[in-house]
Amino acid sequence: MRVTSTSRLFEGEQLVVEHRTRELGCDMRFGIFQPPEARRTGASLLWLSGLTCTHENFCSKAGAQRVAAELGLTLIAPDTSPRGEGVPDDAEGAWDFGLGAGFYVDATRAPWSQHYRMRSYVLDELLPDVAREFALDAARIGVSGHSMGGHGALTLALGSPNRFRSVSAFAPICAPSACPWGEKALAGYLGEDRATWRAADACALIDDGARLADLLVDQGSADEFLQTQLKPDLLQQACQRAGIDLTLHMREGYDHSYHFIATFIESHLRWHAERLA
Amino acid sequence: MRVTSTSRLFEGEQLVVEHRTRELGCDMRFGIFQPPEARRTGASLLWLSGLTCTHENFCSKAGAQRVAAELGLTLIAPDTSPRGEGVPDDAEGAWDFGLGAGFYVDATRAPWSQHYRMRSYVLDELLPDVAREFALDAARIGVSGHSMGGHGALTLALGSPNRFRSVSAFAPICAPSACPWGEKALAGYLGEDRATWRAADACALIDDGARLADLLVDQGSADEFLQTQLKPDLLQQACQRAGIDLTLHMREGYDHSYHFIATFIESHLRWHAERLA
Repeated sequence: MRVTSTSRLFEGEQLVVEHRTRELGCDMRFGIFQPPEARRTGASLLWLSGLTCTHENFCSKAGAQRVAAELGLTLIAPDTSPRGEGVPDDAEGAWDFGLGAGFYVDATRAPWSQHYRMRSYVLDELLPDVAREFALDAARIGVSGHSMGGHGALTLALGSPNRFRSVSAFAPICAPSACPWGEKALAGYLGEDRATWRAADACALIDDGARLADLLVDQGSADEFLQTQLKPDLLQQACQRAGIDLTLHMREGYDHSYHFIATFIESHLRWHAERLA
Repeated sequence: MRVTSTSRLFEGEQLVVEHRTRELGCDMRFGIFQPPEARRTGASLLWLSGLTCTHENFCSKAGAQRVAAELGLTLIAPDTSPRGEGVPDDAEGAWDFGLGAGFYVDATRAPWSQHYRMRSYVLDELLPDVAREFALDAARIGVSGHSMGGHGALTLALGSPNRFRSVSAFAPICAPSACPWGEKALAGYLGEDRATWRAADACALIDDGARLADLLVDQGSADEFLQTQLKPDLLQQACQRAGIDLTLHMREGYDHSYHFIATFIESHLRWHAERLA
């Protein structure tokens, strides 16, 4: 791991780190914010970003570091897909598939299966390596994310019990099997057999028996993707059927942007810190 | 004036507004954050951005809206130069002259003098028009800014007494007549006669008799431009000679980025709000 930039804020340090990844077969960058008391608490939050983002968006636009510094919470923000020469992209350069749109799954179809292994990268490579390198407590990691990254947070947590002690999401894609973004991505990365999509669909995972202790979701009512892509009502129904304690805040007039995230990130960080204490 | 986008955050609204300007002879955009209680307080802060920025950087990276919402402070963030077809740029596309680098002066040299009138644009067109359009109190406006925009905040306030009730700056160019960025810009926009530069140089303005009630400046000690371009020691000496009440915070380990601004913007906004009450 090689620190490519470091910048002080809120008495902590925002780093950008580059590393060679086995799982993705390329060089990757991630952002990590180390609060002043990082070593005392050892607690961290994994943030998964949405379509078109890199590691950078959350680090510069969410305003999360102020509260993370107060709470002693390390923030880890990976990129959203493999990158670089030799990594295939959508033939038409679409923003909702290929680069910037890894969907946090391990692709099984060529040509994607060689590099697009974001699930294994995050769970089995990035988190263990970062925990070791930055002296974090691997038993006290929370996960959150936005949109495609909210889908990532939900499915990684539901699909790997006990890896995350706290789970939340902002405007997540709740049921990718039932929306255009998800159908395109899952068909592309996993193929047409919808049975293979269930492990990459939060609602299907819950229906198939996956459980969380509790779950916090914020959703803007003026989000242009609310009805067509995100569908929090499907998540709410799945949680009800399963008895999962979901707190779903519908935020009047808020859209899909980082302004929405910036407004409510403090409440999410405090929610995670309580569970990671 | 035409609102081109609106997005809710912290119960207020972040707008981007486009307007045709007389002073600059082009269409311009600016950002304006209206806190929930904007109409009750009527107080506002003009933020002047640094080299290469547009209206957008401050609105998305400084994290200012949270505190502005609490304080009922409207935030006005103009662009840093004229834009668009017919507006000349530096022949080599330099980032420290021409587009994105208006230096908040009225150029007197061709070809710049036709469009590069940022001082008159901000003071005589943007602020009055915005105050009228958004029902702000023209007697309760503060000014702050970063780097080139810190220079803008200092020189606009020093050069137009009673226009701003509170003045602060982050890592300002304190003496443009005595640093490479400033010498290039002032020679380019105003010509080689250095006597004409004095009205565009905070230290010279103070030495020539301009006064402020008080002044708050934050500067990072790890700022790569500290010694070569910014020179807060010259401002400190000028304020001492003139008896201006300068509060200069040297912030250990902070750099020139928006991380530095994000960390200390809250203290500046509270300082302005006290004086704008």
